[in-house]
Amino acid sequence: MEDFMKGYFISLEGPDGAGKSSVLEQVLNEIGPQLNTQYLVTREPGGSRIAEKIRQIILDPANVKMDDRTEALLYAAARSQHVEEIVRPALAAGKVVFSDRFVDSSLAYQGAGRDLGIDQVKQINEFATGGIEPDLTLFFDLDPKIGLARIQKLRPDQEDRLEQEKLAFHEKVYAGYQKIARQNPDRIVKIDASQPFDQVEAETIAIIKKRLPDLF
Amino acid sequence: MEDFMKGYFISLEGPDGAGKSSVLEQVLNEIGPQLNTQYLVTREPGGSRIAEKIRQIILDPANVKMDDRTEALLYAAARSQHVEEIVRPALAAGKVVFSDRFVDSSLAYQGAGRDLGIDQVKQINEFATGGIEPDLTLFFDLDPKIGLARIQKLRPDQEDRLEQEKLAFHEKVYAGYQKIARQNPDRIVKIDASQPFDQVEAETIAIIKKRLPDLF
Repeated sequence: MEDFMKGYFISLEGPDGAGKSSVLEQVLNEIGPQLNTQYLVTREPGGSRIAEKIRQIILDPANVKMDDRTEALLYAAARSQHVEEIVRPALAAGKVVFSDRFVDSSLAYQGAGRDLGIDQVKQINEFATGGIEPDLTLFFDLDPKIGLARIQKLRPDQEDRLEQEKLAFHEKVYAGYQKIARQNPDRIVKIDASQPFDQVEAETIAIIKKRLPDLF
Repeated sequence: MEDFMKGYFISLEGPDGAGKSSVLEQVLNEIGPQLNTQYLVTREPGGSRIAEKIRQIILDPANVKMDDRTEALLYAAARSQHVEEIVRPALAAGKVVFSDRFVDSSLAYQGAGRDLGIDQVKQINEFATGGIEPDLTLFFDLDPKIGLARIQKLRPDQEDRLEQEKLAFHEKVYAGYQKIARQNPDRIVKIDASQPFDQVEAETIAIIKKRLPDLF
């Protein structure tokens, strides 16, 4: 992260159905009141008016003809707007920012899942973010078979365009995540998301407290 | 252009108000029936369902908060879809494709006009197009002061978000175009767009006939 940024940036990553969003909600219910600084919760793609409009195009199941490169560029465009309007100002104000997905999602889904190449997608995203990177990334590690089964159980009729992809795609995404985690051992911390929810939550809190002792 | 492409790709470029679209329409009225091969007319940003949706976001005057990088990435995303759905299939089928704006517009407007850097924007667009480049680019060369005055006269209440930019922006765009033209002397042919309409049209036809004698 750039030096002038005073805040702390945490991203949450993992395959669909790994429970990131639910865990984050519970974790913040628990530790939010204990934090001695302001925090902000945001998500990708989206988080601002323009980014939400871009998100609608990306996830609309009617857009079946969407080219893989278009998809990668739209995610990068939404991210650029999200960084500029939401993430950068919050970090500059000294806040802790929790983002449900960030650049690693594009590297895994578009770079690995769509076979566009992790390095090429990384380059596009460096342009998009102006170099902002999470200080800590919580990777909710879950076999995509289990993740997809969870999603189908939870909301069988509401899958978006990416969730509708076949298992082979999600297996590639997962392999991509593992590769990115190996390449960034200091930033990315794995959490076994196949454990019972309470344990995943407890482990997440423990990691945050260990990495950010000053905030409690 | 890639070798397997059998068609011929012509882009039209220039500042707002240079008359590209009107000239193209008249030129095709005149030479369209003489061409011995099929041709396709398209425009950027847009040209396909998804690309048109992206275009709406880009040009909506309500989106005043749009970040420059977001704008550049959205244009690249629309272009990628346009290339995949419209341009590439037409070229593969041996057609002559006329595109009202292509990559050079992004280099001039976002690279030079927005100060993002011509080379950086070029890189993003190489990803977007997969390397497809026009065989011939007609650059309608016009002092942006004259161009802007023409637009305000033609449609004073309907300017889009980019047309509303101040003269200083359009001067930078124009300087960008001149630089790109100097860097690509074989591909880019300048046409003096300050001449009377009939002369601009005649010059455009002459250039096309000279470059594409086999098509007549």
